Amino acid sequence: MPHIDVGNDAPGIIGLMRFRPETADPLNDLADALLRAPGPLSRGERELIASYVSHGNGCAFCTGGHSEVAARELEGGMPAVRRVLDDHDFSGFPEKIGALLTIAGLVRRGGKEVTEESVAAARKAGATDVEIHDTVLIAAAFCMYNRYVDGLAAPLSTDPSSFGQMADHVVAHGYAKGPGARRA
Amino acid sequence: MPHIDVGNDAPGIIGLMRFRPETADPLNDLADALLRAPGPLSRGERELIASYVSHGNGCAFCTGGHSEVAARELEGGMPAVRRVLDDHDFSGFPEKIGALLTIAGLVRRGGKEVTEESVAAARKAGATDVEIHDTVLIAAAFCMYNRYVDGLAAPLSTDPSSFGQMADHVVAHGYAKGPGARRA
Repeated sequence: MPHIDVGNDAPGIIGLMRFRPETADPLNDLADALLRAPGPLSRGERELIASYVSHGNGCAFCTGGHSEVAARELEGGMPAVRRVLDDHDFSGFPEKIGALLTIAGLVRRGGKEVTEESVAAARKAGATDVEIHDTVLIAAAFCMYNRYVDGLAAPLSTDPSSFGQMADHVVAHGYAKGPGARRA
Repeated sequence: MPHIDVGNDAPGIIGLMRFRPETADPLNDLADALLRAPGPLSRGERELIASYVSHGNGCAFCTGGHSEVAARELEGGMPAVRRVLDDHDFSGFPEKIGALLTIAGLVRRGGKEVTEESVAAARKAGATDVEIHDTVLIAAAFCMYNRYVDGLAAPLSTDPSSFGQMADHVVAHGYAKGPGARRA
């Protein structure tokens, strides 16, 4: 049972964004800045961090959507994504990405959980300060998006293909003009 | 020791925002939409929720800044804020605000921690769906801001008056033109 009546049938964060477009705009702009805008980490790598954190937080909606986007953007597709999510097996990715995923997992538990050792390991594997910054902020942001969706008990779609459809829309149009945007 | 070199001396999130203005813009816009824009909860009530979550997460920078803003916006000033933060004593505020603070504390632990009972109690005390929505999103957002600051070990100012100065700036100009904004 959803905790509030959003007055529409859209699933997860999409329904919440249509209910409250005033906050949807900056949430979508932030998702674009974090996951789609030019940056040193690829779109697939950033979506993988988002999926990994969402899965760790047990947020089915965010995991479903962002793992489909990650699968579309990464060479290894969904099998590579699932190995990270289900088995915490980072070996299919460069050492730098594994070290950044480790940092993301620490951020998920709490900001103060990030250790000097975990940052040193990322830097040793070639991560720059901007890449470490972006990883921490993406992981932190999904601790927000996940809590937003599950804190209001926003429902999933009954259509199992809906995550793929949302991901196709995001890959084509980004988030600011994405499925939850009033500017779509 | 900060985990990254932001190349400036500004404390906490301000230094991070100057390091990475691309993500600062949507973060500041979101703070304005959540805490300053017209809404059913007062600015003081929303800043109190932000302070309460930040204090629960142990984020000294966010607690310091937002409690100073809350104190400026609330009739009871800093003593009323500190009773909420230090003693979890909500009795100085209407029952509705206490019920919303309770929900915020659950969101802080995790989205799935929010119970139907806690939502029913807020509704019984007069909270609307928009107020419950905004409370959950503010609490979720500070789980992001707190992790961003502490996940990068961003330093505090050595000047104890800096939180008050930041709060004065926010009260006068908001966040989008606030101390961390490139559009200031």
